[in-house]
Amino acid sequence: MWRQLEPIGRHPGSGGYRRFAWTGADAECRAWFEEQARARGLAYEVDRNGNQWAWLGDPAAGDAVVTGSHLDSVPDGGAFDGPLGVVSSFAALDELRSRNAQLSKPLAIVNFGDEEGARFGLACVGSRLTAGELTVEQAHRLRDADGVSLPEAMDAAGVDPDAIGADPERLARIGAFVELHVEQGRALDLSGDRVGIASAIWPHGRWRFDFRGEANHAGTTRLVDRRDPMLSYAETVLAARREAQLAGAVATFGKISVEPNGVNAIPSLVRGWLDSRAADQASLDAVVSGVERAARDYAGAHGVELDVVRESFTPVVEFDHALRDELARILGTDTDLKVPVLGTGAGHDAGILSGTIPTAMLFVRNPTGVSHSPAEYAAEDDCVAGVLALADVLEGLAGR
Amino acid sequence: MWRQLEPIGRHPGSGGYRRFAWTGADAECRAWFEEQARARGLAYEVDRNGNQWAWLGDPAAGDAVVTGSHLDSVPDGGAFDGPLGVVSSFAALDELRSRNAQLSKPLAIVNFGDEEGARFGLACVGSRLTAGELTVEQAHRLRDADGVSLPEAMDAAGVDPDAIGADPERLARIGAFVELHVEQGRALDLSGDRVGIASAIWPHGRWRFDFRGEANHAGTTRLVDRRDPMLSYAETVLAARREAQLAGAVATFGKISVEPNGVNAIPSLVRGWLDSRAADQASLDAVVSGVERAARDYAGAHGVELDVVRESFTPVVEFDHALRDELARILGTDTDLKVPVLGTGAGHDAGILSGTIPTAMLFVRNPTGVSHSPAEYAAEDDCVAGVLALADVLEGLAGR
Repeated sequence: MWRQLEPIGRHPGSGGYRRFAWTGADAECRAWFEEQARARGLAYEVDRNGNQWAWLGDPAAGDAVVTGSHLDSVPDGGAFDGPLGVVSSFAALDELRSRNAQLSKPLAIVNFGDEEGARFGLACVGSRLTAGELTVEQAHRLRDADGVSLPEAMDAAGVDPDAIGADPERLARIGAFVELHVEQGRALDLSGDRVGIASAIWPHGRWRFDFRGEANHAGTTRLVDRRDPMLSYAETVLAARREAQLAGAVATFGKISVEPNGVNAIPSLVRGWLDSRAADQASLDAVVSGVERAARDYAGAHGVELDVVRESFTPVVEFDHALRDELARILGTDTDLKVPVLGTGAGHDAGILSGTIPTAMLFVRNPTGVSHSPAEYAAEDDCVAGVLALADVLEGLAGR
Repeated sequence: MWRQLEPIGRHPGSGGYRRFAWTGADAECRAWFEEQARARGLAYEVDRNGNQWAWLGDPAAGDAVVTGSHLDSVPDGGAFDGPLGVVSSFAALDELRSRNAQLSKPLAIVNFGDEEGARFGLACVGSRLTAGELTVEQAHRLRDADGVSLPEAMDAAGVDPDAIGADPERLARIGAFVELHVEQGRALDLSGDRVGIASAIWPHGRWRFDFRGEANHAGTTRLVDRRDPMLSYAETVLAARREAQLAGAVATFGKISVEPNGVNAIPSLVRGWLDSRAADQASLDAVVSGVERAARDYAGAHGVELDVVRESFTPVVEFDHALRDELARILGTDTDLKVPVLGTGAGHDAGILSGTIPTAMLFVRNPTGVSHSPAEYAAEDDCVAGVLALADVLEGLAGR
């Protein structure tokens, strides 16, 4: 299965994947999904939001056990983020069949559309629409960098954009959703375990810091006469690292926009974006308020004006405790794996759905800890352990 | 005269001027120059490099006294940088005529083309070509942001691009060139003088700092596992300010480029440009080597790779001492002005020509110190003082 997916959307220069929603690379990945479903005699369908489903058993029976992930990627992303969950789902089904496992509930594999948000700027569009967390009007307003709207892109990919919207009937048929994902960090590598269970998705958000100074000639303006916003920005970048360290959280300034951005011009505006995440709300609040306080002090000292705007925020997502404990029981008693429970700073379709249905996540060890980059990795042995764990979980949940 | 120039190329939104070389706004400014020359009965000509000349007396007589500056602007530049020198030249000629001054040498007013380099990225193209400091081949390779080449742009503006090149015969006829310019700093404002004489143009250069780290997920990568080049960049920005302060110089990081420049991505590359200038070479060397040393230490501490590339460099330009002393003598004995001698961090056509002919500069007080911005300013009284000083200088030099 891997070999067929491997070349799709791979950039020859970077070695990274560029599988953006509703592009040609995405269509090839989706064709692969349909092939895998049909080759296994599963009932294939595309829901009103363009998510792909492959069913074993009768969907209408209810209390279905669903697994899956996504096939799209960030720009120059790795091979595992998303596809590992989908490939492992098909492999786990093959494992269940070879075990001749008896299932009393319907089982489905899903590929959610546009998880990464790399093209239209919003993550998890497929699951958000289904869960009613994104309205049709909001979705229709999304545009990519070339000005192509989401409806135009869906239409070009053969999905009717006028049919999209919340899908409560579909979700009501699902008893549990389990997403397997490559770990985007090194917790499993450090603990020496192949597979882990998610406890929660950390609360996270994005804040825009606009430092406004005065444009001036870089050659002739005395240092004391300057109102240089780059200095306040630089001090704030370092403050963010200090505050994150203090709180055991993460904080990143990864995007910047400067005006006029000329070599011989003191900037009039430096706009920096802070991404911060922490294990709990109090820690996140401590980081962001600490960074903002420091930024205001620095800006004041340089005669620079500062505006801070919260651009997005997602509160903590606690995965369903009963389902999480059930997974721990299944994996703890039926196997000799030690399965730690760990939090994550990344968003997922499972996080979106957790507001509506019981969801859980399994993580597979990533020795580099790197994600959203070609250096993202999982060893074959660990991937196999992930498939077997997922098969155990599906059998445990659907065979009850 | 000001009133006619005022609306040309002024952007209604910013209030700044956008008079880029060989554009429509530039053509209007050039038409204004020709009108001013003809209205005064001066012999008007355009040289092989598109620079405009207005002659009083016979150019072929030799030992001419020339004054002037440029009419083009940086993006959203102020009203004075360039035009003040040209307007003051015509006004000084009017003053000499009203005084009935007797001149024994030919006098000329010049408008050099493309001084700011805002369109083609290289400053002082008109004077560089004339002085032979820019070859025809180099000039023909210049392109603007839209891919239009300098020859295409000159051709469209009615100047033959195949005729351009060094013009030693023209320069050989000039005994002295004096450029009047608004001060791009606050030295005169602080000393309380209306007019100053330039001593030298500081040595200056541009250095590109490439900090290469590792792209990774901003939400899931532990701080200790990061190789974040933004941190090294931030520390280097602050080091540049410290080193410049120590050396009594200036240093600016005003331009930055980040990859992938995503809110949720630790950058793989942060590229920052350092502009630094100092009164002498030793001070400039101290600043740049200090910044580079600090940057290497910071990069090393963060596991970040650093490349530093010197993109351009201009050594110190000492204006002709005899001519400078002559200006000081004229202005000191013939007027009651106190005329300080001061250095400048900015480049000028006068700096380019100083390698070939005796050149000098007069500065007019700028109370804001601001330049390359709509906030650039000179009070009317100070402009009049500048015109009278320039008239005195021209009479003193041409009447000998």
